[in-house]
Amino acid sequence: AYSSGAKKVTLIPGDGIGPEISAAVQKIFTAASVPIEWEAVDVTPVRGPDGKFGIPQAAIDSVNTNKIGLKGPLMTPVGKGHRSLNLALRKEFNLYANVRPCRSLEGYKTLYDDVDVVTIRENTEGEYSGIEHEIVDGVVQSIKLITEEASKRVAEYAFQYAKNNNRKKVTVVHKANIMRMSDGLFLRCVRDMAQKFPEIQFEERYLDTVCLNMVQNPGKYDVLVMPNLYGDILSDMCAGLVGGLGLTPSGNMGLNGALFESVHGTAPDIAGKDLANPTALLLSAVMMLRHMELNQYADKIERAAFETIKEGKYLTGDLGGRAKCSEFTNEICAKL
Amino acid sequence: AYSSGAKKVTLIPGDGIGPEISAAVQKIFTAASVPIEWEAVDVTPVRGPDGKFGIPQAAIDSVNTNKIGLKGPLMTPVGKGHRSLNLALRKEFNLYANVRPCRSLEGYKTLYDDVDVVTIRENTEGEYSGIEHEIVDGVVQSIKLITEEASKRVAEYAFQYAKNNNRKKVTVVHKANIMRMSDGLFLRCVRDMAQKFPEIQFEERYLDTVCLNMVQNPGKYDVLVMPNLYGDILSDMCAGLVGGLGLTPSGNMGLNGALFESVHGTAPDIAGKDLANPTALLLSAVMMLRHMELNQYADKIERAAFETIKEGKYLTGDLGGRAKCSEFTNEICAKL
Ligand SMILES: CC(C)[C@H](C(=O)O)[C@@H](O)C(=O)O
Ligand SMILES: CC(C)[C@H](C(=O)O)[C@@H](O)C(=O)O
Repeated sequence: AYSSGAKKVTLIPGDGIGPEISAAVQKIFTAASVPIEWEAVDVTPVRGPDGKFGIPQAAIDSVNTNKIGLKGPLMTPVGKGHRSLNLALRKEFNLYANVRPCRSLEGYKTLYDDVDVVTIRENTEGEYSGIEHEIVDGVVQSIKLITEEASKRVAEYAFQYAKNNNRKKVTVVHKANIMRMSDGLFLRCVRDMAQKFPEIQFEERYLDTVCLNMVQNPGKYDVLVMPNLYGDILSDMCAGLVGGLGLTPSGNMGLNGALFESVHGTAPDIAGKDLANPTALLLSAVMMLRHMELNQYADKIERAAFETIKEGKYLTGDLGGRAKCSEFTNEICAKL
Repeated sequence: AYSSGAKKVTLIPGDGIGPEISAAVQKIFTAASVPIEWEAVDVTPVRGPDGKFGIPQAAIDSVNTNKIGLKGPLMTPVGKGHRSLNLALRKEFNLYANVRPCRSLEGYKTLYDDVDVVTIRENTEGEYSGIEHEIVDGVVQSIKLITEEASKRVAEYAFQYAKNNNRKKVTVVHKANIMRMSDGLFLRCVRDMAQKFPEIQFEERYLDTVCLNMVQNPGKYDVLVMPNLYGDILSDMCAGLVGGLGLTPSGNMGLNGALFESVHGTAPDIAGKDLANPTALLLSAVMMLRHMELNQYADKIERAAFETIKEGKYLTGDLGGRAKCSEFTNEICAKL
């Protein structure tokens, strides 16, 4: 689909360390001669004609036109009533599946060396519905919303992902023993979808059991699909197993576009000091290239990044090194 | 309070491996001359006069009179409409705080050697409210219920626990960035309670962040307090760090009594074969003894159990050994 010409990609550099790690990715892409053209946009909420704050129209238009974007970390405005901007974007573009691969890096030692899992998280509803009420003073309810439509959609995505990426197994993660109706519906949708992919193994596991097994034997798992909150938790846990959010990519997949993002924070304490680690954003950009079927560029960049990490000469502070962001970046460029 | 005479304790042996591990605990208690008297009861649901299934009255009366009980694993009846019997008991006796200490055992090697955390889980509401509806076909909601009363109660328990047990810090685990009202209420209750315990450090952390940090650096954490589901997950994860549910105790604390239980399953595959590991139930019984202020017995039994595990000569299959449940038990008795 994207085989010729320079495809435009929306870039949301983000806040804090966002601009410098975005610049690092752009530099590496240039060094690799990736045939894309960046369109940088600002998503800082602006007050619209109706007086409400919202994402600027230009940013929305850019993503809607390009249908693909890369995004650095965004600050959540402090104070009541402000919902996370990260979430607002997922909602705005109906990005229904959040995909986070976590793989042990050969070059970066942790307690685990055989992690290779992909969490696929329903990204639009569940515990993130935003529907809450105070029934009476001191009694609050939050609604976890599960729909057949969203559950089927993410289930299909998970199996299709497994198939396209030569994965062997899909595990659905749930607490249908407790939330019999909501997680029960989710579970049934995934179970039904499994029927259509007989070549992919399928298993059903309780969330608590997966958490326990994941820290003991992550090699048990392959692709995992689950409701929104469970994905939030499990993906962070898996990231922890391989070295943290500075090393793991993510993609938000929608019907009409996809947004790839590093899910670490904005790290205001080191922002602007050339100390940030651009790896998570770079690997997200690599995921994006694969999504665009620019695999040869993806492979080349990924290899250069992994080699640089493995050599260990130019590691940033979060990885125990003393290199600057620009030194790490230059080393990757030099390898390309 | 329990300083003289033989206090009666309700024993719910449970299903599967329940009876044999309960017998092991009883044997060890006898060897240690613990001054308690067991009152074994059966909690298998029976049909009441109203035609509904429920916990037998004799069992309820026993717990209500003795105000303290030890419980093996219970099978959940399969089929729609059956709620977990484990949960029914927590509800029946209003056991509002679930306490699960997880400590690295000197004698049992895992990837981690510095785990020493206690998860304190709200045990009566939250995601476990059981309130669910199908709004229209294919659209289901589950209600997460958070009340000020239950949140305060568990918050107070957590700080009091920290104080009584010489713990330094309490961390409240939440997702108030997403569930602003419900987790927000829980968070505020814990925050307010923290004011009353100035000698205990207090911190607030997102659930996903705790999951990530816990697998990288569990030594960061001490006592953790959180809503029901988060406790389910985190306690299993922490158990995983130290060797699994076969090694970790738990206690359910109520206003009117306390029930200590091993939270592993009934292991029907090995039931009746003298292969089960009684450690989790034994350590739960040790927690119970401390609760009864029978500390000298608790210390003595715990020491004997840890030594037996450390020596490694009589380990059961789940710990990589080849001993029978009875051999492991006899070795502990011999040390007493
Ligand atoms: C920033 C926060 C709202 C978000 C979430 O909870 O989903 C983050 O933790 C993530 O995983 O992307
Ligand atoms: C058996 C199950 C209902 C229970 C729970 O979800 O609370 C268990 O996982 C636990 O942690 O005690």
